[in-house]
Amino acid sequence: MKKSTLILLLSVLMISCSQKQEKLVNTKLLTIEEKIDSTNLKKLFNSALTEGKSYEWLRDLTQNIGSRLSGSSGAAKSVIWGEKLMKEIGLDSVWLQPVMVPHWVRGEKEIANYTTKSTKKNVPICALGFSVATPKNGITAEVIEVKSIEEAKALGSKMKGKIVFFNRPFDDTLINTFRAYGGCVDQRVNGAKVCGEFGAKAVIVRSMTNSIDDYPHTGTMSYGDLPKEKQIPTAAISSRAANILSVDLKQNPELKFYFKQSCETLPDAPSFNVVGEIKGSENPENIVVVGGHLDSWDLGEGAHDDGTGIVQSLEVAYLFKKNNIKPKNTLRVTFFMNEENGTRGAKKYAELAKLNKENHIGGLESDAGGHTPRGFSIDANTVNTKLLQSWKKLLSPYGLHDLDKGGSGADISPLKGENVTLVGYRPDSQRYFDYHHTSTDTFDKVNKRELELGSASMASIIYLMDKYLYSNEPVKP
Amino acid sequence: MKKSTLILLLSVLMISCSQKQEKLVNTKLLTIEEKIDSTNLKKLFNSALTEGKSYEWLRDLTQNIGSRLSGSSGAAKSVIWGEKLMKEIGLDSVWLQPVMVPHWVRGEKEIANYTTKSTKKNVPICALGFSVATPKNGITAEVIEVKSIEEAKALGSKMKGKIVFFNRPFDDTLINTFRAYGGCVDQRVNGAKVCGEFGAKAVIVRSMTNSIDDYPHTGTMSYGDLPKEKQIPTAAISSRAANILSVDLKQNPELKFYFKQSCETLPDAPSFNVVGEIKGSENPENIVVVGGHLDSWDLGEGAHDDGTGIVQSLEVAYLFKKNNIKPKNTLRVTFFMNEENGTRGAKKYAELAKLNKENHIGGLESDAGGHTPRGFSIDANTVNTKLLQSWKKLLSPYGLHDLDKGGSGADISPLKGENVTLVGYRPDSQRYFDYHHTSTDTFDKVNKRELELGSASMASIIYLMDKYLYSNEPVKP
Repeated sequence: MKKSTLILLLSVLMISCSQKQEKLVNTKLLTIEEKIDSTNLKKLFNSALTEGKSYEWLRDLTQNIGSRLSGSSGAAKSVIWGEKLMKEIGLDSVWLQPVMVPHWVRGEKEIANYTTKSTKKNVPICALGFSVATPKNGITAEVIEVKSIEEAKALGSKMKGKIVFFNRPFDDTLINTFRAYGGCVDQRVNGAKVCGEFGAKAVIVRSMTNSIDDYPHTGTMSYGDLPKEKQIPTAAISSRAANILSVDLKQNPELKFYFKQSCETLPDAPSFNVVGEIKGSENPENIVVVGGHLDSWDLGEGAHDDGTGIVQSLEVAYLFKKNNIKPKNTLRVTFFMNEENGTRGAKKYAELAKLNKENHIGGLESDAGGHTPRGFSIDANTVNTKLLQSWKKLLSPYGLHDLDKGGSGADISPLKGENVTLVGYRPDSQRYFDYHHTSTDTFDKVNKRELELGSASMASIIYLMDKYLYSNEPVKP
Repeated sequence: MKKSTLILLLSVLMISCSQKQEKLVNTKLLTIEEKIDSTNLKKLFNSALTEGKSYEWLRDLTQNIGSRLSGSSGAAKSVIWGEKLMKEIGLDSVWLQPVMVPHWVRGEKEIANYTTKSTKKNVPICALGFSVATPKNGITAEVIEVKSIEEAKALGSKMKGKIVFFNRPFDDTLINTFRAYGGCVDQRVNGAKVCGEFGAKAVIVRSMTNSIDDYPHTGTMSYGDLPKEKQIPTAAISSRAANILSVDLKQNPELKFYFKQSCETLPDAPSFNVVGEIKGSENPENIVVVGGHLDSWDLGEGAHDDGTGIVQSLEVAYLFKKNNIKPKNTLRVTFFMNEENGTRGAKKYAELAKLNKENHIGGLESDAGGHTPRGFSIDANTVNTKLLQSWKKLLSPYGLHDLDKGGSGADISPLKGENVTLVGYRPDSQRYFDYHHTSTDTFDKVNKRELELGSASMASIIYLMDKYLYSNEPVKP
């Protein structure tokens, strides 16, 4: 058996050796200040990975409250939940910012089907946010498939009385899936507005996803300034159903598509942003805000969108306290309300910041899912962009390589200004649109370590921003 | 509604803008040759993401064949499957390399439980590969918990008649989870050997995972040169059960643990490596090999370990053919048999390579799961290591930032030599040990895009290795 022992020992050794040593920063190459930063970042990561709370907070939010569409009872419960939690972790002050939000409700579960070659096919469908209902008995009409808004416009009055079917899929060759989303979402947002103008009966849209599956993805849409009588019902169908319908339409262009939905927009409802902060030890008047959005779509549990952003933002403050790191500037955590259909919370927050002459020097938003960290996207002046990019050697040991210029996020971007450094957390995007706005965006899709690494990544950049973005004056180059 | 339109248009714009532009290489900074390479890499990625076959191949392997432990009928079926597939995609030649492999079988499902404070607790347990069975009626004994091989050795004869329980958990602060595995796996591999020597009755080991859950993780172990009469049964228990047992032992150190397993090692069985190649157009005598292992543990479906490595390796050749890229050197795809418990396939492959005076200039192994790409680990001489690292600007647009020195993998490392450039594919490691060697390593855990991005990453580095590692002569510095 001697040989076998050797083989096994060798295998074990190979396992150990084949995996490169933990890539800690080569501290020889760092300045004294950078060594301190490197040590503090490691503390934040260790803490998140061994005593982090974000995963259990997320379990509570998603499993005990669930979906949180603006105006819903879930959203109201989440406000109470957020306020309580902020107080529990011992923030210096916690308050609610009242804000009126849109109140759209889905009503009964939608139904859709059509019959072709004597086979009835049921279609997974869901109304889009702000859509009107169909008549009580639903709509039945022929379908015209198009791939773009332009193609629809070119149809003109030909679409009269028909259902227009927008079916441009994601461009799978784009490595960043958010770019694929950006390249398709106009169909969902503007399809019904354009086709209502030309007298179409309804609009159905292929779901916004790379995945070919049976889950319809909801999301917001707009009628623009279309008069009420031209506002037509609109819904998303699953990507697989879209593929099948497209094939069936080629064989049977006269097939009749039926769908029924009973959604409606109620009067605006009262709600709140939840805000808490740790007072700055040196420049309390300067604020660095970190946040995500507390509302979610009504399908699923709002886990990756944006439960993860909420618990990670709070964990930033928790990790600071746990590691006795006192921010020089005020560290503010904000749970924004109504990002999904109106961004009223974001606007209210910025409006109050202006009214109260608050001095925001930086902001960080997490609203791109809770997957494994990849980096940050920076929306700042050139000097501060370079400053943030100079932290690459401190961040890359944690898989944070992407530090490119780009947008931050819908909730903090109203704070934009020449001297405000806004940052978007950018985890890996590959799986995000598998779950986005669907019934499958649930707690079980979130990996504990990926979530915690995200919290620590966010705490790390906030630590560095707090330390090096001293004022709202542009740093001298 | 005008305001609402504006808001929505703005939201859509923000979505587009907030996500940075697709980071293609800034071609202005590239040489002409690098521009050609950049274009070819993009082709390989586009092709993998739009016409890749790896996901459907993996579905077939995992769902229609399933687990493939050496010597099992699943392993035999997978050899036929692999040979057929290699022929189907049109490799120039395909053959089998006969190899005798260990043949260990689990037998009946294991049982474990203990009673404390009048409560009977069932323990999720599984025998470790190569372990002997318990007596037919199982083993019942008191338990001594230790955290390391050293601690066990220090117990000496105190462990006589007892079950030794190795319970050192993963170090969760290590960002690369393979390092945490490397820091714990000696308990699983050597625990029974050490404790058998001192007369322990059995050994149970905490499962090798970061996750706290109910799935026992199997894996190989060794008795070394321990005589038969000292070989004691050994098994893994789930991480949650390990935590609970540890608490119970503190309250009740005399509790009796019962378990039963009926595994056995049968005589060696005949099996095969599956090998196929595309003949090199310029230097057909030079070989670059890419592979993974066809065998898997008997729990689960061997999806991430290593079904993904198998289908990605074959997809490298498929992508070359699909894009009409003719390798200068011979591109060989190898499905190695028996990585999990013996690496006999790897040894046979290296032995035959030597016997047949084959000239391997490079090798790439994928055996770290099918998650989102992070980079490669390089085992090569200094000059070639630098050469590979110089491709960073071509690889980083695809999230491939890690290009560090390190091991390659258990199956290709027997080919190691001064002038052989060996590379290990390194996807993100965060989720790997959630599934590794358990019943949950199933097809549904693999994300299609992550898998395909891996295939394309591997095809990209093979493309560059094929082009720039011309010979086995060391490149002049």
